Amino acid sequence: MKGKNIVFVAKSLDGFIAGKNNELDWLEMVPNPKHNDLGFDDLMNEIDAIVMGKTTFETVLGFGGEWPYEKHLFVLSTSLKSIPEKLQEKVTLLKGSVQEILKSIHAKGFYNLYIDGGKTVQNFLKEDVIDSLRITTIPVLLGEGIPLFDALPKLVEFTHVKTEVFLDQLVQSHYSRKR
Amino acid sequence: MKGKNIVFVAKSLDGFIAGKNNELDWLEMVPNPKHNDLGFDDLMNEIDAIVMGKTTFETVLGFGGEWPYEKHLFVLSTSLKSIPEKLQEKVTLLKGSVQEILKSIHAKGFYNLYIDGGKTVQNFLKEDVIDSLRITTIPVLLGEGIPLFDALPKLVEFTHVKTEVFLDQLVQSHYSRKR
Repeated sequence: MKGKNIVFVAKSLDGFIAGKNNELDWLEMVPNPKHNDLGFDDLMNEIDAIVMGKTTFETVLGFGGEWPYEKHLFVLSTSLKSIPEKLQEKVTLLKGSVQEILKSIHAKGFYNLYIDGGKTVQNFLKEDVIDSLRITTIPVLLGEGIPLFDALPKLVEFTHVKTEVFLDQLVQSHYSRKR
Repeated sequence: MKGKNIVFVAKSLDGFIAGKNNELDWLEMVPNPKHNDLGFDDLMNEIDAIVMGKTTFETVLGFGGEWPYEKHLFVLSTSLKSIPEKLQEKVTLLKGSVQEILKSIHAKGFYNLYIDGGKTVQNFLKEDVIDSLRITTIPVLLGEGIPLFDALPKLVEFTHVKTEVFLDQLVQSHYSRKR
């Protein structure tokens, strides 16, 4: 298949992407005075579009301020009825199976996709359509929260591509799907 | 407190230490033709004794062959009645709370401990007595299995010490408890 689906996510040592009440403050517990982008700019240069679910979209909206993405965003939701008017050129609402969603996005000319958000990542992993996993581990045990991974129908092998340590504390490993 | 409690463990990308039926074969999916010890020998030189639960002890016994440990082993169990006769000088059976167990082991002159086995690691983490976490990540999603981590009563912060990639595929990170 043309293009690739990339996950880029931060997790705690015990595998959570958010606290049990959706807390995200622990993501910034390691001081980052020079605003190192932790590989995010490289990712943005590599992709054509972003794909996320409603929950993550609403979290991004909740941050307020300037719209953060230059690349087109696809929001997956069956319940969301419309996109805020000022974002209608930047955001497209989609629904359907993972395969239908990918077909629809590809038909619009977007092939290299940043897949974001807990449920969306899990659904794409279940369909085995994730080509690249880029995981940054924050040195904390949250003890409970919203897990990055969910049960899968079968074992899925990856190949380690590279590991980099940011700010002396954040370990970021890139893996590609072994096919 | 004198000495330290060290966890040294391999996990899948999704945080499992064994498959759902206790499968361990995936731990060896990355070829290791020169038998790299992956840091195990350094660990053994650093510790005075090993601590594990009954399940892990029985797994080790099940491997057969030569007894694998030079250091003294403490097995934690309330149900195990005795240690096989040929191991009685090498293995001591203990029971009690984590604090009682540590007190008893320290009283025997062992201070730097390798804490092994799923339940034992989880119980020691719950009591916040783990000083060093050394985690090797195997590039595979198992999808289900026996998890390394369990719920904790509160967030626990660590400091990243070092990360090393073994065999180009296995990412091993060392963390120390931030106290």
